[in-house]
Amino acid sequence: MSEQSFVGVDAGGTRTRLVLADHQGGLHASVEGGPGDYQRLGAAGVGALITELLQRLQPELVPTVLCAGVAGAGRAPEQQALCGELESRQVAAQILVVSDARAALEGAHGGMAGLVCIAGTGSMVLGRNAAGEEARAGGWGPVLGDQGSAYALVLEGVRRALQAEDGSGEATSLQRDLLEALELGNWTDIVAAVYGSGLSRARLAEACPAIFAAARRGDRVAADIIDAAAYALGAQVGAVARRLRLTAPVAVACTGGVFAEIEILRGPLTRGAGGVALALRPPRLPGCLGALLLAMGEGTVNVPESVISNWIMP
Amino acid sequence: MSEQSFVGVDAGGTRTRLVLADHQGGLHASVEGGPGDYQRLGAAGVGALITELLQRLQPELVPTVLCAGVAGAGRAPEQQALCGELESRQVAAQILVVSDARAALEGAHGGMAGLVCIAGTGSMVLGRNAAGEEARAGGWGPVLGDQGSAYALVLEGVRRALQAEDGSGEATSLQRDLLEALELGNWTDIVAAVYGSGLSRARLAEACPAIFAAARRGDRVAADIIDAAAYALGAQVGAVARRLRLTAPVAVACTGGVFAEIEILRGPLTRGAGGVALALRPPRLPGCLGALLLAMGEGTVNVPESVISNWIMP
Repeated sequence: MSEQSFVGVDAGGTRTRLVLADHQGGLHASVEGGPGDYQRLGAAGVGALITELLQRLQPELVPTVLCAGVAGAGRAPEQQALCGELESRQVAAQILVVSDARAALEGAHGGMAGLVCIAGTGSMVLGRNAAGEEARAGGWGPVLGDQGSAYALVLEGVRRALQAEDGSGEATSLQRDLLEALELGNWTDIVAAVYGSGLSRARLAEACPAIFAAARRGDRVAADIIDAAAYALGAQVGAVARRLRLTAPVAVACTGGVFAEIEILRGPLTRGAGGVALALRPPRLPGCLGALLLAMGEGTVNVPESVISNWIMP
Repeated sequence: MSEQSFVGVDAGGTRTRLVLADHQGGLHASVEGGPGDYQRLGAAGVGALITELLQRLQPELVPTVLCAGVAGAGRAPEQQALCGELESRQVAAQILVVSDARAALEGAHGGMAGLVCIAGTGSMVLGRNAAGEEARAGGWGPVLGDQGSAYALVLEGVRRALQAEDGSGEATSLQRDLLEALELGNWTDIVAAVYGSGLSRARLAEACPAIFAAARRGDRVAADIIDAAAYALGAQVGAVARRLRLTAPVAVACTGGVFAEIEILRGPLTRGAGGVALALRPPRLPGCLGALLLAMGEGTVNVPESVISNWIMP
């Protein structure tokens, strides 16, 4: 391996991945570990995890630049705290910490301008234009935002099922479907579980396929929920595209578990974007390769398109 | 005072009131103390508060029946725990614990059939027919329900303001109005405060008048929020009226801080109820007199309408 080396990190709620490259963009190795969510582990926990994975990736390695895209580290104070932690652990000569969304955006278009629309447990739309300006919409978290996320879809499903239960809303098979998906006996249990500690956000989000299945079987309430959610995501995509003055059709990389159902979402998402023509597609590269691109850019290494085209996770 | 005596208790999130009557329904005394919310104080705390207030009401008094309507004690396990606590303190020969909503319903129509629509910090619709059957709609708490509550109105206002902020929603003066009402500098602060501990549910609910003020000044987003909230309350009222087979026009007592704005709510609430004709009015008696009626009923004392008509809190 050449003198200079670069490491990209994608630390998410489910797993953490590291990938190593040389200064020409040659991919050498990757390694995978457990969850690296900042809100759960804190700076010390994420720092320890990355240090350990780095040693498994290549013992004694001190890369030229390491860039970590970290879930739950969307704000400057968190990024600075984790950067300080990684510096004190001397994991790399130069260290950059960004949100996992920022790493996803960089990977989504192989370092080029475009948008990423993320809808997993949470949701967010993030974009960048050719001038390097960034803009975001949504991503205000589970109480104030995260429209179109798996958690938001299921929560709305539970609400509508409860309204069917007390007669104030339309009848829906979700009354039965969600109880089954959440392995609960009755609606009193679900209320107690949501307010107690029995039903986490992640666990609720896992029931999301039940909403899509109900819609596919013709349940109008489920279809409404999905329609409104995709429309809201589309409105966020449209807003970011307009603010960044992107030319149509705007490349939108769709990522996160909810987009397993891209065909159901396409229509309302496009309507939500208003007049902005969209080209919806899967992300080109995963988040850890996005983080790698950011690491190499920070080291002023420009990876040619011909190299990126051949990238396959080692 | 006659041999038999009855005490009604309304223990709420803001204050607790006790009222004392003889077996003929003569009101003798009342006393007021601090908050008696079960979720905050627990059985021991609410028990201690009621015991202390009872001694202030009349030292050495052991009433024949005491009925306590308690906020946050809507479910059987909570009611049983508090009942046990009050029994061990020997506060009365006979003890009955119900939710504050049940006491409000009893007071709202002076013990007669009808509905109560509560919209304060939380919300709920509860009703009773002449046969004594009860039904409820809504009241699924701040995450799953409480449509039309002050908290729900403000939360939706914050959401819509954030959507205006990132360009994914319509422009609204709530962006400025809610920051002012919540005494915050910017929207980053509000997000941090909602997810941190800076902004409680009660504090958010207090900003509710800002939503109504904006609607009155012609803000379309604020008007939409209020319209949807009142419509949802109406749907709950309609559902309960239908389930109880109440004859039109259905007497609906509206109570809680949100109903300070009854004139703005009347239209969409009526539409939400569908075909059910409503007679919206303020509650006839406060919750503690509702609890008193329940206490007297439990003691098989029937208070004649002529007595109730003359009730004024002592």
